[in-house]
Amino acid sequence: MRFAAGEAAFRYHGRTDLMLALFDKGTQVAGLFTKSKCPSAPVEWCKARLKRGKARALVVNSGNANAFTGRNGAEAAKHAARLAAQASGAPANEIFLASTGVIGEPLDASKFEGVLDKLAAQASPGGLFAAAKAIMTTDTYPKAAAATAGLGGVEVALAGIAKGAGMIAPDMATMLAFVFTDAPVAAPALQSLLSKSVTASFNAITVDGDTSTSDTLLLFATGAAAKRGAPEILTAKDRRLSSFRQALDGLLLDLAHQVVKDGEGARKFVEVHVTSAVSPSSAKKIAFSIANSPLVKTAIAGEDANWGRVVMAVGKAGEPAERDRLSIWFNGVRVAHKGTRDPAYDEGQVSQLMRAEEIAVRADLGLGKGEAKVWTCDLTKDYVAINGDYRS
Amino acid sequence: MRFAAGEAAFRYHGRTDLMLALFDKGTQVAGLFTKSKCPSAPVEWCKARLKRGKARALVVNSGNANAFTGRNGAEAAKHAARLAAQASGAPANEIFLASTGVIGEPLDASKFEGVLDKLAAQASPGGLFAAAKAIMTTDTYPKAAAATAGLGGVEVALAGIAKGAGMIAPDMATMLAFVFTDAPVAAPALQSLLSKSVTASFNAITVDGDTSTSDTLLLFATGAAAKRGAPEILTAKDRRLSSFRQALDGLLLDLAHQVVKDGEGARKFVEVHVTSAVSPSSAKKIAFSIANSPLVKTAIAGEDANWGRVVMAVGKAGEPAERDRLSIWFNGVRVAHKGTRDPAYDEGQVSQLMRAEEIAVRADLGLGKGEAKVWTCDLTKDYVAINGDYRS
Repeated sequence: MRFAAGEAAFRYHGRTDLMLALFDKGTQVAGLFTKSKCPSAPVEWCKARLKRGKARALVVNSGNANAFTGRNGAEAAKHAARLAAQASGAPANEIFLASTGVIGEPLDASKFEGVLDKLAAQASPGGLFAAAKAIMTTDTYPKAAAATAGLGGVEVALAGIAKGAGMIAPDMATMLAFVFTDAPVAAPALQSLLSKSVTASFNAITVDGDTSTSDTLLLFATGAAAKRGAPEILTAKDRRLSSFRQALDGLLLDLAHQVVKDGEGARKFVEVHVTSAVSPSSAKKIAFSIANSPLVKTAIAGEDANWGRVVMAVGKAGEPAERDRLSIWFNGVRVAHKGTRDPAYDEGQVSQLMRAEEIAVRADLGLGKGEAKVWTCDLTKDYVAINGDYRS
Repeated sequence: MRFAAGEAAFRYHGRTDLMLALFDKGTQVAGLFTKSKCPSAPVEWCKARLKRGKARALVVNSGNANAFTGRNGAEAAKHAARLAAQASGAPANEIFLASTGVIGEPLDASKFEGVLDKLAAQASPGGLFAAAKAIMTTDTYPKAAAATAGLGGVEVALAGIAKGAGMIAPDMATMLAFVFTDAPVAAPALQSLLSKSVTASFNAITVDGDTSTSDTLLLFATGAAAKRGAPEILTAKDRRLSSFRQALDGLLLDLAHQVVKDGEGARKFVEVHVTSAVSPSSAKKIAFSIANSPLVKTAIAGEDANWGRVVMAVGKAGEPAERDRLSIWFNGVRVAHKGTRDPAYDEGQVSQLMRAEEIAVRADLGLGKGEAKVWTCDLTKDYVAINGDYRS
């Protein structure tokens, strides 16, 4: 696989805003997309192509999301795919697309002309980091990760890039992530691996609870490692996948954490761990209720160990909870126990702890065995400033 | 009915923080409470007493929420009710309680001693506004409203007070509202009226989507107007209630709007109107998805007509929506139409409109006849500052 980045000036000037990835014949693909009922044109394009499970190229632009652009948007996606097909010598149906940036502005697809040909000529195996930079919007740093795994005694490689601005949001800030591997894994197996892996990574992070029109996660497997003797894997149940699965889980979690840490205006990285809920899904709902609460997030920004707000967030989740069984910890120190303030609670000690850059909130429900971890960031005045400014 | 306010120094000094309302024998009561799974001790006390439908007094303190205070909290509520019973000469089971303020701090119920006797002696029909002041926490102004209605040809009076800090939140900020009338309406009919009326008022407002452990709305009917010839009403189906129902709806909406306008850090009052959804409940879910979106609320704070974020919020609601049928208006000006930017969109004109103090967002789904209105405020840096400061 080969990567290149270039300038097409969709919105930004003096920086790269377009990436192209080229894959060998036989490359398999799996994907997950936003659940928004108003998805972008590239999301609709990819969904329609994913069933075939084959990919030859990926084109991503930043600056314009090509979302809420009507028929013009669908045409622009088609035109981009057609140009990428010409540049790569592959069928348009095997071209995958993503766009991130302003919503509702028509995307001028003529800007892809010429540039894609040049990128196809330049593309090289070492171009991944440049690609990670080209897809940034309000991100403050490029996000990339790599891992290796064993597959039938052969080492296979995984690499991934992501962009977020640390949020799940539409305007100049959409979560995109792309993972590439040389492991020979068939599309249905890839899809199954990906769907399971996101539960504890990309589906366990939140910045503001908002959902983009464009969120896209694609996993490409070229199968090149087959030449080195890696076995071809047809189903996700294959036991030889265990090392690969673990590497994929770790890589996605790494990228997801990078996205949260770069949350708009974020100063603290927050882990919310819910234990002893009635079920894992109940635990996750409660964890998100805490992680999405503006009151919990502003308290953490203010370095205030305000466990009363954690109680509130547990209570509003709508999941089974009993006040008199609930205990709460901040960074390992128990502040509330069985429905009342911990007798040993020392405000000075806890205030000290809250100055840390990483804050771990734990809530134990005392009801069952359900457990979940989710990650978020604090809510600062900078979040409001970044998102309250005029688009222009 | 008579009201009094006094100082008991639960937390605040140099201001009133306790109110007492006294009702004649035969007063009927209806109520609605937080859906939090971790409700405060006074909420549990009131819920248990509401079934009998009878009330003789209401005691509300500010500064301490008596929430997440375990067995001590239940004892404190019981002690307060016992003292109010002595002061008013009524059974403790007909005393209603509410507390608002810090969560998790034990409430020192001995502070009610003496003060309640004094307040019972001072209570007067004109003391309602002083009561509204005594229940404030981070509210910047007291909230009160009054109305009259006809009942069987006789004029009856309604009056209400509320506190919010404009938010549905637990720490120094809980939504409390109390409504009083002299109409002779039986408790089951009152309960039915109240439950219906909140759908379009207190259950149609949001500041930050957080739910307090202590939210309480109580409606007391003394029946005194029966002496002036008002008919006794036993069921909510009674057609003679139409004027009363209308007055109650208006009063609750007035109080609910006052609560939102005093939202923490709020500078703008926002109405979200969703039309042509598949059903009224679908419309309300979409309206709340817009009204609770931090991205929509920060855009409004920044006076940015960012309709892309409204599209995002419609899309993430999980309700039926079709991008190519969606239209959006800001203060009456259509900015997006049938899945794309309105051809007549004039950024300058719309930017001008966004400077108004009241912003009306309308989203038309183009699908059915479902309609809903909800109200919220913008999300400013001041919200973060107010909620990010140390409790101390």
